[in-house]
Amino acid sequence: MSNKYAVIMAGGVGSRFWPVSKQSFPKQFHDMLGLGKSLLQMTYERLHAQIPAQNILILTNELYVDLVQEQLPQVLKENIVAEPAMRNTAPCILLAALKIQKMNPAASMIVAPSDHYIADDDLFNEDLATAFDFCNTHPQALMTLGIQPTAPNTGYGYIEYDKEETAVKKVVQFREKPNLETAQEFLAEGNFLWNAGIFIWSVDAVVNAFAKAQPNMTQLFTNGLNLLNTSQEQEFLEREYPKADNISVDYAIMESSKEVYVLPARFSWNDLGTWGSLFDKLDKNEDDNAIVNSSVTAINSNGNMIRTAAGKKVIIQGMEDYIIVDQDDVLMIIPKTAEQEIKDIRNAAMKKYGKEIG
Amino acid sequence: MSNKYAVIMAGGVGSRFWPVSKQSFPKQFHDMLGLGKSLLQMTYERLHAQIPAQNILILTNELYVDLVQEQLPQVLKENIVAEPAMRNTAPCILLAALKIQKMNPAASMIVAPSDHYIADDDLFNEDLATAFDFCNTHPQALMTLGIQPTAPNTGYGYIEYDKEETAVKKVVQFREKPNLETAQEFLAEGNFLWNAGIFIWSVDAVVNAFAKAQPNMTQLFTNGLNLLNTSQEQEFLEREYPKADNISVDYAIMESSKEVYVLPARFSWNDLGTWGSLFDKLDKNEDDNAIVNSSVTAINSNGNMIRTAAGKKVIIQGMEDYIIVDQDDVLMIIPKTAEQEIKDIRNAAMKKYGKEIG
Repeated sequence: MSNKYAVIMAGGVGSRFWPVSKQSFPKQFHDMLGLGKSLLQMTYERLHAQIPAQNILILTNELYVDLVQEQLPQVLKENIVAEPAMRNTAPCILLAALKIQKMNPAASMIVAPSDHYIADDDLFNEDLATAFDFCNTHPQALMTLGIQPTAPNTGYGYIEYDKEETAVKKVVQFREKPNLETAQEFLAEGNFLWNAGIFIWSVDAVVNAFAKAQPNMTQLFTNGLNLLNTSQEQEFLEREYPKADNISVDYAIMESSKEVYVLPARFSWNDLGTWGSLFDKLDKNEDDNAIVNSSVTAINSNGNMIRTAAGKKVIIQGMEDYIIVDQDDVLMIIPKTAEQEIKDIRNAAMKKYGKEIG
Repeated sequence: MSNKYAVIMAGGVGSRFWPVSKQSFPKQFHDMLGLGKSLLQMTYERLHAQIPAQNILILTNELYVDLVQEQLPQVLKENIVAEPAMRNTAPCILLAALKIQKMNPAASMIVAPSDHYIADDDLFNEDLATAFDFCNTHPQALMTLGIQPTAPNTGYGYIEYDKEETAVKKVVQFREKPNLETAQEFLAEGNFLWNAGIFIWSVDAVVNAFAKAQPNMTQLFTNGLNLLNTSQEQEFLEREYPKADNISVDYAIMESSKEVYVLPARFSWNDLGTWGSLFDKLDKNEDDNAIVNSSVTAINSNGNMIRTAAGKKVIIQGMEDYIIVDQDDVLMIIPKTAEQEIKDIRNAAMKKYGKEIG
């Protein structure tokens, strides 16, 4: 029996990828890169390389249970946990840790977002194995995989680590999203990594950390400990889960713990946070246009991010640095520089056409 | 029994309106203006105001017979004439005139394109009645309805008329599409009208004119006179029609005849020749965007011509003077200034994807 477990977080909406990502069909369920698999499916396959299927849990909103089952029919039904309310990462991770601890008190687990892009599955799995090993030898460690920054990005949180020459680094502190100047200082310092929201720890360590730093939330869930992994779990969650604080795991336990470690990841990573980051990640054609699914004829047109249904023929002329997305009954054509306005555009569309469009 | 007949010409392709207008579904069968009726249906209804249904003939390519029947189920099957080859207007008009003459030697007929826009059906019908009356009193007259020019357009042919103060004007000559300078002179002169391809004449007059100016073509069709309007007509046409010269009626009879008259039309007309002319014709929203079918949210976007399927939501930002057309599996986004390149774009698409796309 393997002691390695995985928790895939698949409850987000990804509204900056509207109109592809919608409340009814969020980003992680889409084949964002046109590779024939959804981001969730790619995440599952990556983890399944060293974690057995029965040890992989998917935590998602109750709205998406059917979608998860459809895309991952190999996942045990009881391993799909339906959150009855949208909450930040802390309640969901604590719940998963308690469930796994009840299955196997000697377990270690990785927490992984379902909607990021990782280029090299083998390197990822080597790093993950290193992290699991470290948790074995350091049973109270809270580990993260930190991403080597390639630019002074102000959209990510940073992890500052101790400069000592070890493979796994001791974390000095978590740093909020910085301004540009601070981000530039971080890069110059050299001992800062991006926080990608990937955590590895023994269930013992994380449950202890929650008990210490979040006694109320811990009490809320341990009150129902005998119901977890039973037919009464869902009823318990419906009643109690919405009472949990809406906070992130970083804030809940990582920032206050003294036992936090980071392994600088060797794989290439992209959070696919915006159409622009997808553009950066994708291969470009000879005109520097990034294309998902579409067949494009580009006349005097460069730097565009184009996505449609497969088989759509797109002819553009005189278009530079635009996001062109055709999804179902929505066609959006906006400059790449306006990508941060997409949330507002989505909200306006929902006001105009009804919630279903968002 | 009415002596008034109509011939609606519905065999063209309208390739400058690609990707909406296609070989398999040309412009005249589309609801180009978003009014709930195709251009062909509007043309039929306009003429039907003074011409009985059984006197209206539709001449079209054999490819489109089913489309005509579908859109105009009230038209008698024997009144839909299938041209077995694409030809300019002369053969088609002569054939129609001979068919009608055989039905009713006292007939007069209007020849009307099926793919133009006419704003005021009542004014059109008053002008048409005037023209029919004139043909009654001048049985050898070849009449046209000429459009009062609103700009020195170089895309139309012009009709120069005698300045004498009569309602119906004697035509001095037909003038080919002019250059800009010449077009400006025409407008300054004041006695020039646009040739809209609308003709009215007695069948006797037009058959005589063909016999005089186009003896070979006349012979070709009169050889089969006993077959016209019979079950053997189609077989005759399949065999003989492709032999007819590919020339326009203007060139075949109008330019050489001495009996040509024009009535300056009072209705507003647009040939809907390009996306730009459709843009000019349509009402604009507050941002000066012209929209057919789509529901548009325009952010800093003006002067665009937008057409999609009904129900499509279009969100644009920073777009000025573009043609944005979404039709089936083609999305085209090009500057309005490139509208004359659409034929080339269509040809390139047909080369890339196969003829069906054009």
